[in-house]
Amino acid sequence: MSDKAIRMPLQSLIQSMLPAVEDELRRAVADVKAPGMDMLHHMLAYHMGWEGEGAGPSATGKRIRPLLVLLTCAAATGEWERALPAAAAVELVHNFSLIHDDIEDNSPLRRGRPTLWKLWGIPQAINAGDALFSLAHLEALRLADTLSVETTIMATRIIQQTCLHLTQGQHLDIAYETRRDLTANDYWPMIGGKTAALLAACTDLGALTANADRAARENYREFGRLLGLAFQVQDDLLGIWGDAALTGKSSESDLVAGKKSLPVLYGLDQRGPFAARWAAGSIQPEEAITLARQLEAEGARAAAQATADNLTTQALQALDDAQPQGESGEALRELALKLLQRQT
Amino acid sequence: MSDKAIRMPLQSLIQSMLPAVEDELRRAVADVKAPGMDMLHHMLAYHMGWEGEGAGPSATGKRIRPLLVLLTCAAATGEWERALPAAAAVELVHNFSLIHDDIEDNSPLRRGRPTLWKLWGIPQAINAGDALFSLAHLEALRLADTLSVETTIMATRIIQQTCLHLTQGQHLDIAYETRRDLTANDYWPMIGGKTAALLAACTDLGALTANADRAARENYREFGRLLGLAFQVQDDLLGIWGDAALTGKSSESDLVAGKKSLPVLYGLDQRGPFAARWAAGSIQPEEAITLARQLEAEGARAAAQATADNLTTQALQALDDAQPQGESGEALRELALKLLQRQT
Repeated sequence: MSDKAIRMPLQSLIQSMLPAVEDELRRAVADVKAPGMDMLHHMLAYHMGWEGEGAGPSATGKRIRPLLVLLTCAAATGEWERALPAAAAVELVHNFSLIHDDIEDNSPLRRGRPTLWKLWGIPQAINAGDALFSLAHLEALRLADTLSVETTIMATRIIQQTCLHLTQGQHLDIAYETRRDLTANDYWPMIGGKTAALLAACTDLGALTANADRAARENYREFGRLLGLAFQVQDDLLGIWGDAALTGKSSESDLVAGKKSLPVLYGLDQRGPFAARWAAGSIQPEEAITLARQLEAEGARAAAQATADNLTTQALQALDDAQPQGESGEALRELALKLLQRQT
Repeated sequence: MSDKAIRMPLQSLIQSMLPAVEDELRRAVADVKAPGMDMLHHMLAYHMGWEGEGAGPSATGKRIRPLLVLLTCAAATGEWERALPAAAAVELVHNFSLIHDDIEDNSPLRRGRPTLWKLWGIPQAINAGDALFSLAHLEALRLADTLSVETTIMATRIIQQTCLHLTQGQHLDIAYETRRDLTANDYWPMIGGKTAALLAACTDLGALTANADRAARENYREFGRLLGLAFQVQDDLLGIWGDAALTGKSSESDLVAGKKSLPVLYGLDQRGPFAARWAAGSIQPEEAITLARQLEAEGARAAAQATADNLTTQALQALDDAQPQGESGEALRELALKLLQRQT
């Protein structure tokens, strides 16, 4: 499959879409500007990767979510330009949730740069997240400029329900930190909210803005949801066995952070040496490599990889069922594969 | 004016409106329910004053904001029942902002009860606030059930812009904590966002849902904005010279907390003994009464009271200009007066 990762449709579409996304995002964030709001705007521009030390492509992230919206819209034979406010809105929602997640997870770094709360303190960072959340919703309402009011209402409802779902997933994630009785079954409701909901919203919004019929919308939505699940499992694998340089954080951090990722929950279910060590208390950084090997020896890595592969197959099937059209359809498939092969 | 505070229109309208508001709020908050979400729902129900120790009327607050929406709708000759989703949405926005403000201000108590972050920790409390924010927006979209889609879009835009304005005001409030160069002029942009914006939204939404014409909407909006400013100045007075039992917190807390309220900023502008003591470092609880007397002796109390009175007069003039109709119009005036005479 790796030959598809270098085919042209995705690259050429990305080159036309990404600058438009970035323009839309900058315009949306500029709405916070007002007398006395220079610092608040700078905080948001820093978080978005546009300003401050380390600003640039590595700081912005890849804008996967808006691309998913736009490619889905185009693959469903819509004009992707009309979906730009939806694309920008989901990226703003994503970034709002990162600001708050970083506080809630006590994370000092995001994409290799100090997090907002580290630089400006928790009170200003919570509030900056709230500002970005508000800007996301204002941006979603801009759909009324390009689409019917009925579609705008439907799109904003999708976004609001997704935001609620995100907080439900995050609630579980935080609650799990202190729970000792978790099994692999507890994993899915958490990442269903934390990761899959937003990607499902992306493909749903793309199809909606293209006026796709209900069956196609459901297939696209399911594609996004399964892609999100597969992506998260892959992310969990990288969080334990990935090359730290690829993720911008210590490759062992998920074990050290005590994150209840799928491989960890699988390991706990085995009730073997990994589970015994996990139950004995926090993992120290110097143990992380040994413990990652132990977890692998107990089958957690292979099991999680099989799960990721299975979800990937299902996601691609849902995409096929949606019958995506033209180059955008190919590009959408390419993007999915690229997302799921990040470690190669 | 105090005889108006016990006249009947407000009491009888409140008695029919408040249970409807509470029903709408409970239904909106119930949207967070899902498997595994019992604790998240309980956190929100606790914060709303419905559950947990101390639940009841003193914990819910007075629901002033939704009442303002509904009374304005009725005074503008609309059916107030159709404005219920807007009324509930603003109350949810208000409560979301309280959850985050309590974290940002390090406040252990709210309405005499432990705050959410004190009981469940900062990460869960930030996230619960985000959930309530999402529920507020979902609730606003319910206006589409009772009003045209165009009006729904306009109403949600008012709410989103208000949320942004709230975060701008809060940004200044937090930034002011560490600034030593503030004057009374810095006060208005802060409370314009923190307090006045939401009350302006209430009266604007009430008029909008009643299909009031543009001039009436602007007058109602201005009434709400001025009422918010007057209310905040009154609150500042109570924060220093009020009876602690009325506010559920130490009457001296604003001085001890270092809050840059209008009387404090007025005192700083005098460059007298109060300003000298303020510049010397944090106020200790045992100094608070003496310092409040000093501040009063320097004219801050009288100046702030004159400002509050002036704003009240302007607010009531804007209300008259809106030409509110019938019992609801009288009740609206009554509510405004009641709000501004809380210390009597």
